[in-house]
Amino acid sequence: MIKLQNDLFLRACKKMDVERTPIWIMRQAGRYLPEYRAVREKSDFITMCKTPELAAEVTIQPIDLIGVDAAIIFSDILVIPEAMGMKLEMIESRGPKLYDPIRNADDVIRLREIDPTKNLKYVLEAVSLTKRELNGRVPLIGFAGSPWTLMTYMVEGGGSKSFSEIKKFIYNQPKTAHTLLHKIADAVADYLSAKIEAGADAVQIFDTWGGLLSPLDFEEFSLYYIEKIISRIKRKDEPVIVFAKGVHNNLKKLANCGADVIGLDWTMELGKVRSQIGSKVALQGNLDPTILYANKEKIKAEAVKVLESYGNGSGHIFNLGHGILPDVLPENAKFLVEVVKEESKIFHR
Amino acid sequence: MIKLQNDLFLRACKKMDVERTPIWIMRQAGRYLPEYRAVREKSDFITMCKTPELAAEVTIQPIDLIGVDAAIIFSDILVIPEAMGMKLEMIESRGPKLYDPIRNADDVIRLREIDPTKNLKYVLEAVSLTKRELNGRVPLIGFAGSPWTLMTYMVEGGGSKSFSEIKKFIYNQPKTAHTLLHKIADAVADYLSAKIEAGADAVQIFDTWGGLLSPLDFEEFSLYYIEKIISRIKRKDEPVIVFAKGVHNNLKKLANCGADVIGLDWTMELGKVRSQIGSKVALQGNLDPTILYANKEKIKAEAVKVLESYGNGSGHIFNLGHGILPDVLPENAKFLVEVVKEESKIFHR
Repeated sequence: MIKLQNDLFLRACKKMDVERTPIWIMRQAGRYLPEYRAVREKSDFITMCKTPELAAEVTIQPIDLIGVDAAIIFSDILVIPEAMGMKLEMIESRGPKLYDPIRNADDVIRLREIDPTKNLKYVLEAVSLTKRELNGRVPLIGFAGSPWTLMTYMVEGGGSKSFSEIKKFIYNQPKTAHTLLHKIADAVADYLSAKIEAGADAVQIFDTWGGLLSPLDFEEFSLYYIEKIISRIKRKDEPVIVFAKGVHNNLKKLANCGADVIGLDWTMELGKVRSQIGSKVALQGNLDPTILYANKEKIKAEAVKVLESYGNGSGHIFNLGHGILPDVLPENAKFLVEVVKEESKIFHR
Repeated sequence: MIKLQNDLFLRACKKMDVERTPIWIMRQAGRYLPEYRAVREKSDFITMCKTPELAAEVTIQPIDLIGVDAAIIFSDILVIPEAMGMKLEMIESRGPKLYDPIRNADDVIRLREIDPTKNLKYVLEAVSLTKRELNGRVPLIGFAGSPWTLMTYMVEGGGSKSFSEIKKFIYNQPKTAHTLLHKIADAVADYLSAKIEAGADAVQIFDTWGGLLSPLDFEEFSLYYIEKIISRIKRKDEPVIVFAKGVHNNLKKLANCGADVIGLDWTMELGKVRSQIGSKVALQGNLDPTILYANKEKIKAEAVKVLESYGNGSGHIFNLGHGILPDVLPENAKFLVEVVKEESKIFHR
């Protein structure tokens, strides 16, 4: 095994001392980079996910171009429903589409149990290849969607505005919903274990739609399954990050789910959250992604505010509060990384 | 002036004693009602807004059909940008469109100052007519969008997924944004004053997009202008309700904005919020609107949970945590109203 040259990210996840705050950016391997778009022009999104060489190439781009302290494997959370037997299509500018959405118990039965080393071999190969090509420069993060978030896509058949179908499903067929959630949780646990086995140094669970739920429903339909996954992931000391967007009401319970790190969106006050749960977990976030539309002076001022809000000491991984937007200037992303690297030093003396 | 036969809603807004918890439903005059759709079939949405007889008719429908304790005038928050000179279109199933969106200082200068008694006379006539036709059965609520929410529509040109344009606008042209916000705030204050003058018994300010902002940005770009409006509304004892969707981080400041009532979405814990700000303001909400997709047993159980969460005593107006969805069964809405009327009594002994 190659020794990591930059392990700031991993140390911060474990709340160990660091010389400065590490930074990576959600969706850092993405459309805002011309170098990414050049690859994307030649092959569609799903082909990129399924071709380890292409996935590795775009995964490594932001390390070279932007200077982030961790890589996150290029992939999509919907490879799981696809591996379970659903037909997936990525429709440009309209988002993902899953055909024949799940609506009843029969639909759930038809979904197959997955063996990641077979059904999702291409992701594991992409992880191994990326790991080799990174050659120890920075750690590599693997990821998956939470069972609740994946089920939302599987029932809605894609994104949604009103989320009517998923809500009808959980309120009118709660038993079937729980059967499906268990099935997805098993798949995700195996999948993340396999990613770690293939070389991932950390994993992140995205609960993009957790914020749709009332506090009690969040515990029942989302948090329970996140806990189940974390308890079953086979890992040595690879940290687990949970990013539950919009989940502002269950922070204390979230902090007890077994995760090492909780990711926060930009509507949270980092310092306040640290005082509530910072003794338990490290925190990741949480600059408003649209700040990258601003001029450099504003970007710097706002990045410093985030650093100040967390305050002194380790346990903070800088990130945006959501994915980087496709029409952001790459130089602004690069500037943010430089600012965080420089301005965070004084918080670690 | 006709004496109100049912003033439960107004008393609850003032935290005065009530025999039971009053209930009304956001978007209660809307597409889920076949009687509404019958009116809507014959004239488009904007014509309905602009024809006092039609606006009055659909405003009163849910009083007869669902049994709610307050009426809210049928209208749209975007009548303000239209009165200021923007061309508005309502595109079926795609939402509103404002042509030639605001992008710079020149665009802002071109917007005209409004005189509600002239530019929005049709709304005031609808209020007066509805008030007459209600004949004192229940109070009538007038409403407006918050300056931040209206500006979001005016800059985006309609709804949005990424809200890139509005964020670029406030971060790159903050002075122009504040000029526009002041202009809108003046218009909204005059408009709500005129509605009260025309007969509205209460007014609600909808800050639908407040939750897009970080806590500090919310204070700067939204809350400040809500406060400005409330301080300038000409009223006797007509309560002001502020509904700021997704604003979970500034509750204490929100409670000091001058509003009598704070509306909450379903991601909040009503009881917890009451313990934080309930001595200052009454609370409105906050059943998840999608609960109305469930069966009656579930609807009842969840409605009771909301009542229990608030607990004993006055100061609670039952409502959904967001507008009622167009594909909800009217009988479920009616059932909810009955449940709240019956089950809330024991909290007011």
